[in-house]
Amino acid sequence: MPEFKDLIKFIRIEVNKSLKKIPIPQKPKYLYDPIRYSLKGTGKRFRPILVHLVGRANNIDPNVIMNISLSIELLHNFTLIHDDIMDKDTIRHGQKTIHEKWDESSAILSGDGIFALSQIILSSINDNSTDLFRHFNKATLEICEGQALDKEFENNSLITEKEYLDMIDKKTGALLSISATLGPIYSGIDSSYIEHYNNFGRALGKGFQIHDDLLEITSSPERMGKSLGSDLEEGKQTMMVIKARTNYPKEWDNLIKSSNNSDLIKNCKTFFEDKNIFDKTGLMAKSYFNSARKSLAKIDNINTSELLEFVNIIEKRAF
Amino acid sequence: MPEFKDLIKFIRIEVNKSLKKIPIPQKPKYLYDPIRYSLKGTGKRFRPILVHLVGRANNIDPNVIMNISLSIELLHNFTLIHDDIMDKDTIRHGQKTIHEKWDESSAILSGDGIFALSQIILSSINDNSTDLFRHFNKATLEICEGQALDKEFENNSLITEKEYLDMIDKKTGALLSISATLGPIYSGIDSSYIEHYNNFGRALGKGFQIHDDLLEITSSPERMGKSLGSDLEEGKQTMMVIKARTNYPKEWDNLIKSSNNSDLIKNCKTFFEDKNIFDKTGLMAKSYFNSARKSLAKIDNINTSELLEFVNIIEKRAF
Repeated sequence: MPEFKDLIKFIRIEVNKSLKKIPIPQKPKYLYDPIRYSLKGTGKRFRPILVHLVGRANNIDPNVIMNISLSIELLHNFTLIHDDIMDKDTIRHGQKTIHEKWDESSAILSGDGIFALSQIILSSINDNSTDLFRHFNKATLEICEGQALDKEFENNSLITEKEYLDMIDKKTGALLSISATLGPIYSGIDSSYIEHYNNFGRALGKGFQIHDDLLEITSSPERMGKSLGSDLEEGKQTMMVIKARTNYPKEWDNLIKSSNNSDLIKNCKTFFEDKNIFDKTGLMAKSYFNSARKSLAKIDNINTSELLEFVNIIEKRAF
Repeated sequence: MPEFKDLIKFIRIEVNKSLKKIPIPQKPKYLYDPIRYSLKGTGKRFRPILVHLVGRANNIDPNVIMNISLSIELLHNFTLIHDDIMDKDTIRHGQKTIHEKWDESSAILSGDGIFALSQIILSSINDNSTDLFRHFNKATLEICEGQALDKEFENNSLITEKEYLDMIDKKTGALLSISATLGPIYSGIDSSYIEHYNNFGRALGKGFQIHDDLLEITSSPERMGKSLGSDLEEGKQTMMVIKARTNYPKEWDNLIKSSNNSDLIKNCKTFFEDKNIFDKTGLMAKSYFNSARKSLAKIDNINTSELLEFVNIIEKRAF
């Protein structure tokens, strides 16, 4: 379906144009240089695209939708900047992270500034939008909870699948939920439908994140990034690691202990293949994508075909 | 005027009670333990007290005023937590800072969480409050600008009085401005009056900060804190340092170079006394407090007596 991919591309270009149009002062450079750098990034813009697709299906004012989508993309950027400090990641999307290119203080401050900016943009919607701010900030607090759980889970080899799913629901699901719900909330839709949009966003978020865990180790070396080897070594929990650890505790323990830096990734891949852990994890992601489709089916007052196409694209992505 | 001090004390107690009533979940502990710790702090609550006094003078719903005052106090706490990381301060109000008691990641995250929480509280005002969010987030961005300038000014011995005043206007004035304006904005007051509240808050903020610079070096050793000596040594700019450096460049340079750790504070105090820098700085603070009083005089539709008393208390504080 080339037309739909063109639509996605068109929205991405429009979002990127609008991101560049956000007026960012020149001074103080300590604050605004990193913010400008962050907004020029090459993110995939999945979240603002989702906002636009929901807006199209509901015939919501495109200007309002653009502002909501920008505010959500800025919220996303803010959380990434602070997460990168906490996780000591030096590269994101092929570019130096802000704390690496400038320093930690600059990264803390520019993250704070982008978060404030995201809500200044949200406040440009000339309407009674207190509800939007309530949902926006509750989602932000939930994302903080998700990041806190992620930090708590580091090197905790007792984490269950359920706890991991709860963490990614907060860290990824909450943001996809508001990407799907803020437009309908603005348009004053019946609250029973809001719940379906919320469930749709959260299921899509969990599918997206589990799929992302898989891509991290199965796709090209470039995609894998520098952090994968050290992540596995340092005991960072992913769905595959949890499945390996809980179902094959002794074998997994032996594998980690007997592998050295250079062959750890290869050994893990072989292990995940031999034990069908890749397949099981893939099926788990698939079940969340199907759950997202079921929630869409309940939204019977709009044409959901573009949103279904979007789920397909997310499910099939290999980058 | 004992009655007024009793009123201030009463408001402080009520604000502290309400801060303790904010529902903070138990888990994740990594996020919420530091947030709980921060809300139990022993701040002077000047900003929420100002919100309440403006609310009383304007007969605004006390529940609305309490929510505005809590959101502003939380915004203040958020900025302090992040500033303490950037400035590597280990003690605030006699207690360990969050990054010192826990770690930097926990402090970044709990600051973010408190900022989100501040706006969840603001969103509990059941009204068309988009304006409040616009002002709230614009003030936050301005506070970030102020902190950015503060960082840029470190060790920059070319900073002028004007640049320093601009920095403290952003870092301190912007928050006192929204403390004075959010209530009136909520109550739908005429916009010409909003400008007077804004000017009042900003003048009070600058007076407060310059007075604070003075107290930092003239009051008791406990008040001075650990950072003063190292601040002077590291070339941190204050109004007194700028006056000394610009009016007596050679003498000041000699003093800094010839003083060692143990006698630097004493030598600076003597220098500031000999050159009347304490007096001149005091007069500067006084002129801002008088400017705040003049702005109050323009707000001719309310009884400003309590607000005038508040200016007096801020001007006379010695702690």
